[in-house]
This record gives sequence, C-alpha cells and structure tokens, in this order.
Amino acid sequence: MPRRDWAQFHSPKNLASALSVEAAELLEHFQWLTEAQSHSLDAPKKAEVAAEAADVLLYLLQLCDKLDIDLVKAAHLKMVVNGEKYPVARARGSSRKYTET
Amino acid sequence: MPRRDWAQFHSPKNLASALSVEAAELLEHFQWLTEAQSHSLDAPKKAEVAAEAADVLLYLLQLCDKLDIDLVKAAHLKMVVNGEKYPVARARGSSRKYTET
Amino acid sequence: MPRRDWAQFHSPKNLASALSVEAAELLEHFQWLTEAQSHSLDAPKKAEVAAEAADVLLYLLQLCDKLDIDLVKAAHLKMVVNGEKYPVARARGSSRKYTET
Amino acid sequence: MPRRDWAQFHSPKNLASALSVEAAELLEHFQWLTEAQSHSLDAPKKAEVAAEAADVLLYLLQLCDKLDIDLVKAAHLKMVVNGEKYPVARARGSSRKYTET
Repeated sequence: MPRRDWAQFHSPKNLASALSVEAAELLEHFQWLTEAQSHSLDAPKKAEVAAEAADVLLYLLQLCDKLDIDLVKAAHLKMVVNGEKYPVARARGSSRKYTET
Repeated sequence: MPRRDWAQFHSPKNLASALSVEAAELLEHFQWLTEAQSHSLDAPKKAEVAAEAADVLLYLLQLCDKLDIDLVKAAHLKMVVNGEKYPVARARGSSRKYTET
Repeated sequence: MPRRDWAQFHSPKNLASALSVEAAELLEHFQWLTEAQSHSLDAPKKAEVAAEAADVLLYLLQLCDKLDIDLVKAAHLKMVVNGEKYPVARARGSSRKYTET
Repeated sequence: MPRRDWAQFHSPKNLASALSVEAAELLEHFQWLTEAQSHSLDAPKKAEVAAEAADVLLYLLQLCDKLDIDLVKAAHLKMVVNGEKYPVARARGSSRKYTET
C-alpha cells in the first residue's frame, strides 16, 4: 500500500504540469542574471538551484515510472539521434542550430 | 577540446531556459487529454513523450554539470526533506499539500 | 527618465523568461485540481489566480513594447489564421486539433 | 451555440497548461540569443514572436473569461500593489528585487 496515498493526484497529466512548474521555478533563479553571473552563483543560491533541480528530476522519474518509459534508454537514443542530426564535422564552430532553428 | 564547440551558448542561464522549454514541450502532449487518457498513451505518442523526457534529462544534467551540482545527492536530500515536511502519519489520505498550498 | 531605472534588466530575453515563469506560477494553482474543480475556485484562490494573470499580462505588454510589436493587431491576425486553419464546418464536434497535433 | 464546440476541452486547468506552453514557445525564440541580440530581431523572427505573443494573450483572455476574472482590473490592482512594494525613492537604481529575491 502506498505510504501517503497521493497516487490519486499523480496522473501523468498532473505530473507533466508539476515538472513544467518546477523547471520554471529553477529558471526563475536565473531570469534577471546576466549569462556571466549565471556561471558563478553564491553558495545559498546554488543550494536553492540544486533543490529545484532535484524537484525536476523527481517529477521526471515519477512521470516515466507511471508511463513505463525507460528514461536512461530514451536519453541514450536521443544522444544518438542528436549525433546524426548535428554531425561534428558540420556543426563545430557553427551556431546554426541555435540561431536558425 | 569540445567536439562541437557549442559551450559558448550553454551558460547556466540559457540551459535553464532550454530545460524549461523542453518541460513545456513534454506538457504539450498532455494538455488536452483527460487525466484518464494520460495514463494510456498509444505507442507513437509514448515514444514522443519519451524523447521529450530525454531532452529534459539531458539539459538538466548539462546544467548541473556547469554549476558543479551533484544531482543525485540533491535528489536524496530533497527526499529526506520531503519526508520530514510530509510525515506519513499526518499526510496519508490527505490532499492538503495539493489543495491548500 | 525612467522612475525606477529597472530597464537595464528588461531585455526581451529576460522578459520572455519572466513571462514564462509567471505563466507557470499561474499553472501551479491548477496542477493538482481536477478539470471539474478548476471551474469553481473559491474566492481567495480566484484572487491569487487573477494576480498571476495580471503578472502574465504586464510582462507580455512590456515585452511587446520593447520589441515594438502591436499585440492587438497580432491577436487579430492570429484569430484570422486560426479561422482558416480550423474552418467551422470541418472542426465542429471534432477534437482532431487537440488529440492529433 | 459555440461554433466549433471546443469548449469541452477548455477547462481552466487545460487553458492554464496551454498558456504556459505558449509562453515557453515564445521563450524558445530567445533562449540561445544574447540579451543584446534579443533587442534586434529580424523581421521574420519578429513576426514569429508576435504570433506567439498573440497565442499567449488569446489563451489568457479565454482563461479569464472562463473564471470570470476581470483581467484589466487585476492588472491595475497589481500595478498599485507593485507601486507600494517598490516605492520609487527606495527602488531607483537598485537591483535588489532582481538579485535578492
């Protein structure tokens, strides 16, 4: 028996919302920083960002569990696909992916 | 030497944006489904969701790498914190966390 | 002279982040509710949702102002485009847009 | 009678998701740009951003309509509240709101 009986709220639809909300909370920490500032967070801010990153991971794992998705396998597959979409010889030094998608 | 030389775009600020955008793309697959429908995706839809989930994970890992955050440790810490915030004896059968935050 | 001198933080890039974060804060109010519950918020919750909706609008207006985008004209154009993409005779009673995009 | 009969999908919960997804699509256009680049979009990119901004507004209006929220009144109220939270005399020249929240 589930210990807290919260499964009733945890439909994949709801977990996908929660994941997106947590990702936005993580983004909130960076929204007014410059890119340069975002490289060097102080310790308290870094701890807050780590906690938000953990929330993102935990909801992602719950979502994949509910949907019977093998997340590690999906990530490997994605890395292969990305490798084919952006071969090193053509992509290096280019920002086309970033500026012209 | 980085193989594709994309690191210049991958500030933590930008990676946090990309993470949030990918999480929203994942959510998009669920936004018009009922909660019941969201439990039983057909195979093509499930493959699309798996690919989006992979994107979320890959950006999350890149972000944590840039910031020198130990994601697994952060997730463990979060689970301990959640266990203390929502002790089983009080939380079971209650939806207070969900409906009254 | 701008009264609070915050314009330095308000690049379109940053405003787009802030807009997305506010939209997620609005979503957070709904994420554990059923669709039925989401139709009948109590007064305090409704006031909170209204405040988040206002934040979304205010950032959207600032972003469009910075980019010299005529938002009302863009919305009218979009309504015309949507009218052509989903003509009434074909779209009525169908959920294709929602379930098969 | 509603012309396309899509109201069945348009619960406040679903509209809040759609709003958040559209805001992320808007953000996607900016995620790899520098802040400086984000000020000067070329015409095709600006048209795409305008179309996403329109989507955000249209979902926001639908959501407020469903919930019987007066969006303009809520925005006015929010501006008053912000004026009190960040009085000009204390806020000018300071980035505290942005860097220390």
